[in-house]
Amino acid sequence: MATPPPAVAGMHLDEVDTPALIVDLDAFEANLRRMAEEAKGAGVRLRPHAKTHKCAVIALQQVALGAVGVCCQKVGEAEAMVYGGVPDVLVTNQIVGAVKLRRLAALARRARMGLCVDDAGNLDDVAAAAAEAGVVLDLYVEIEVGMGRCGVSPDQAAVALATRAASKPSLRFMGLLAYQGAAQHLRAPEERERAIAFAAARSREAKALIEAAGVPCPIVTGAGTGTYRNEQMSGVYNEIEPGSYIFMDADYARNRGAGNRAFDDFRHALFILATVMSRPKPGIAVVDAGLKAMSVDSGLPVVDGLAAEYIGASDEHGKLRLESSSEGVTLGAKLKLIPGHCDPTVNLYDWYVGVRGGRVEAVWPIAARGAIT
Amino acid sequence: MATPPPAVAGMHLDEVDTPALIVDLDAFEANLRRMAEEAKGAGVRLRPHAKTHKCAVIALQQVALGAVGVCCQKVGEAEAMVYGGVPDVLVTNQIVGAVKLRRLAALARRARMGLCVDDAGNLDDVAAAAAEAGVVLDLYVEIEVGMGRCGVSPDQAAVALATRAASKPSLRFMGLLAYQGAAQHLRAPEERERAIAFAAARSREAKALIEAAGVPCPIVTGAGTGTYRNEQMSGVYNEIEPGSYIFMDADYARNRGAGNRAFDDFRHALFILATVMSRPKPGIAVVDAGLKAMSVDSGLPVVDGLAAEYIGASDEHGKLRLESSSEGVTLGAKLKLIPGHCDPTVNLYDWYVGVRGGRVEAVWPIAARGAIT
Repeated sequence: MATPPPAVAGMHLDEVDTPALIVDLDAFEANLRRMAEEAKGAGVRLRPHAKTHKCAVIALQQVALGAVGVCCQKVGEAEAMVYGGVPDVLVTNQIVGAVKLRRLAALARRARMGLCVDDAGNLDDVAAAAAEAGVVLDLYVEIEVGMGRCGVSPDQAAVALATRAASKPSLRFMGLLAYQGAAQHLRAPEERERAIAFAAARSREAKALIEAAGVPCPIVTGAGTGTYRNEQMSGVYNEIEPGSYIFMDADYARNRGAGNRAFDDFRHALFILATVMSRPKPGIAVVDAGLKAMSVDSGLPVVDGLAAEYIGASDEHGKLRLESSSEGVTLGAKLKLIPGHCDPTVNLYDWYVGVRGGRVEAVWPIAARGAIT
Repeated sequence: MATPPPAVAGMHLDEVDTPALIVDLDAFEANLRRMAEEAKGAGVRLRPHAKTHKCAVIALQQVALGAVGVCCQKVGEAEAMVYGGVPDVLVTNQIVGAVKLRRLAALARRARMGLCVDDAGNLDDVAAAAAEAGVVLDLYVEIEVGMGRCGVSPDQAAVALATRAASKPSLRFMGLLAYQGAAQHLRAPEERERAIAFAAARSREAKALIEAAGVPCPIVTGAGTGTYRNEQMSGVYNEIEPGSYIFMDADYARNRGAGNRAFDDFRHALFILATVMSRPKPGIAVVDAGLKAMSVDSGLPVVDGLAAEYIGASDEHGKLRLESSSEGVTLGAKLKLIPGHCDPTVNLYDWYVGVRGGRVEAVWPIAARGAIT
């Protein structure tokens, strides 16, 4: 039931059917290289998050540039990555339920697999599933470092889970997941710096307590596009998990400038190609891309390359206010939108249309689209 | 690349993998019957909107209860409906572009097909595509009746398009689309009544002008779940297009009570089944359903059957604040969420899991999921 691809390699961009999810390959590849160089320069492992792209074709390019593997949030995403040839996948999330744990353990026959826990009973279930499948899973303890979502306190609670993991023959205790996702989109550099300094301090304490209990804790992993430099320089994190840097989005763009170098270093590489389908009156154009073509949870999209503002989304329509210089836009005109939030927008599409120099060069399947179990 | 179904017929609800899109079949069927009776009682044609369900299995049930056919917004949706056996589809939208018009015209070999225009050049393109395919398409002129989106003024502009359509051998001019979607979610009954009274008056004028120009204008179509009674009683609309009534959602539920009978008559029939995956501290539970499991454009989901509030969605997590009576909820517990907005939420899933009496009775493909071209 996948939708047909909206383009064929060799087409001009103008011939692509709409709405379509467009990747500017030059910008995308520059982003991939940039982050690979950053991580290498800082001496940290790069494990990009595949929840952003959901596409093994992209994951393999990240690995080819030096990434140790990828992160996923869901078993279904991990399946798409492993079946697509990715050799090392960490599910940066709790996996609850016997069916899901069996699926995850089965993947460990084909790739190095890890996951996170924040509950002793769940840890036992993970260990049992791995033992049943005859595999060893990498096990990370998720600690709460200021985000207020999942994770145990970075104190004796973390030590208890780490020692429990270390006692299970079917688990390989690898370290800590210390993700401060709430810091990614803070507007001021000092706010982000403060949040990650706090997260790093808590991670350092937890690691010290665990090692004091006699359990090696080699990896502290976390970070996202908005703060990865802070984690890199913390001296605590030795693996980073950025996802959005490959595409960027309108919400990240709002943090550009004013010393926000992390944001300025990456270019917009993801666009929605849309068609003007109605010009009901002067100053207004309606395009064929609405709530089913983009996620608006982090704000409306931004119009690229045309003096116009996207002012309203309904299910299948987008309403644009045109500046006078754009009044000449006619029915059938195609234009590009920068989505407000890249991850849930990508999840609406089956295909990336990779474009270079105005021509379609690649049509990549988003194999983990909708893979939420 | 469809995701595997999260359930098999015969399963207990507790065995369904999560997140999953659940249809309460008793409530759903009651909603179908209710709307069919309403339309029949009012003497108007019922043409439910398939943009809500995107599933021919559901469309055929609506037709079996007396609907004349369905509406769609996109050619891809229409393809899924026609290939699934629906005999009459109206695309309540402008279709712009040669490739899309060819696809639509091709469907007219298998079903009665219609679409809307608000532009003379586009009307000519539609006529040419129909002629090229050797078919006749139903043609409706969309008029602007207060929503401020697409459509021409209900004056000589509408007359000009109607007479132009009537002159084309490959088009069958059927009447007017007069959709006031902005009225569907107005909170007070009087506001909705006023908005539809205005829309009905403009539609009456346009129809009179067109008929005065010698062009029969048999159909005035429009309406949604929030206002369909107003259109039904207007004496102008003779076809209604409600979609959401089959499922309802949390945003429609906010209009319940206080004389809002249209809302009280329909039951919640659509739920997200989610699993508790973390209990990081007292009073908080985290479930496995976030922005990729539901659309939050009209607000966060409502927890069903548990004293708890869904207070935050990230991409793959939902954070719940538990009332003290719900403190006993444990890891692995499954619970139901009522999505804020049904249409874009359905578009995230490949399968409906139909449940009756706690058992899975049906697993229906959402064949037009992602069909946005």
